[in-house]
Amino acid sequence: MKQIITISRELGSGGRTIGKLVANKNNIPYYDRELIDESAKISGVPAEYVEKSDQKITSSFLYNLAMGTSYGYGMLEDANQPLPLTTQIFCAQQKIIKNYADSGSCVIVGRCADYILRDRRDVLRVFIYADMEKRIEHSVKEYGMPKATAREEIARSDRERARHYNMFTEQKWGERTNYDIMLDSGSLGYENCARIICSIAGMDL
Amino acid sequence: MKQIITISRELGSGGRTIGKLVANKNNIPYYDRELIDESAKISGVPAEYVEKSDQKITSSFLYNLAMGTSYGYGMLEDANQPLPLTTQIFCAQQKIIKNYADSGSCVIVGRCADYILRDRRDVLRVFIYADMEKRIEHSVKEYGMPKATAREEIARSDRERARHYNMFTEQKWGERTNYDIMLDSGSLGYENCARIICSIAGMDL
Repeated sequence: MKQIITISRELGSGGRTIGKLVANKNNIPYYDRELIDESAKISGVPAEYVEKSDQKITSSFLYNLAMGTSYGYGMLEDANQPLPLTTQIFCAQQKIIKNYADSGSCVIVGRCADYILRDRRDVLRVFIYADMEKRIEHSVKEYGMPKATAREEIARSDRERARHYNMFTEQKWGERTNYDIMLDSGSLGYENCARIICSIAGMDL
Repeated sequence: MKQIITISRELGSGGRTIGKLVANKNNIPYYDRELIDESAKISGVPAEYVEKSDQKITSSFLYNLAMGTSYGYGMLEDANQPLPLTTQIFCAQQKIIKNYADSGSCVIVGRCADYILRDRRDVLRVFIYADMEKRIEHSVKEYGMPKATAREEIARSDRERARHYNMFTEQKWGERTNYDIMLDSGSLGYENCARIICSIAGMDL
């Protein structure tokens, strides 16, 4: 039985909403932004820096990584090797995600959790997507995104998420081979997506 | 309610097996190679030519299409415009698929059915995939494919299916935006995939 559900998603596809529905239906923990705060505490980096760096890898960061130079704000106090800040945060999140998975059934949204937990047999790896119009509608309604710039902002988010994921996982974000199931929440609806995920989580795989 | 289920699939992913399971569970028709024979009758092209041309678009065909010249064996007797043979067959299949959809609930595997029926609201568009090892295993067992060449043959099939689909649909084969749901039959299993599809087909969307 797949007890741990990781959800990767396009911005505005309702992945968080669906994740929360699944967690509530099964009465299991839901992890998302909480991870950031937790990782911030561990790495000793103030939360606002973690939030800023999260999924925002600039070309200057890529340059620094390529050049093997350290980058940005702070280092883990006990680090023997200097690591770029974004990598430090990723490592901290990785540790936390593994701890969560070890603690029992849960839903984890984003944070490359599908990759981090790739060696476990009890993980259902889900990807949620939707067409652009639906994503704009959701982003305006849920996140108060200005409608005029929503399309552009969503496209930028896609690029950032893909870049972040591709860099740390050496896989391609959104590519089917990384997931057990991919759902179009725009055509299926959030509630149905949650029901489908729950039904699979209960299956003997 | 989604009453018509189209299944696109990678060779060896068990898409046909899953399609048949869904059709049997719901006691509805299953269409697959039957389409070819039917289309052959309509277009007046002998079945063996239809089978040969199916999903085998050679670069010379692409050249002929690009040059606007006709190609290959035979024309529709009443055609006013000369059309390449592969296009004629596609047009005939398109007509048949639309007729099937008009006749009621059914499962249609392959043949760009998701694209052909894209304007209907009652179609559930499914894509089935699996990892290469599982596809090799299935192809050897089900199609008697020699194990030594299976990997190569499967890769070639992927290229041909993609080329055929991309040409006639102007969409990209296997791209998530074309489908409502994508399932990894290797990790989920055929029976579970069929159960998931049936559960969605019964949902109020």
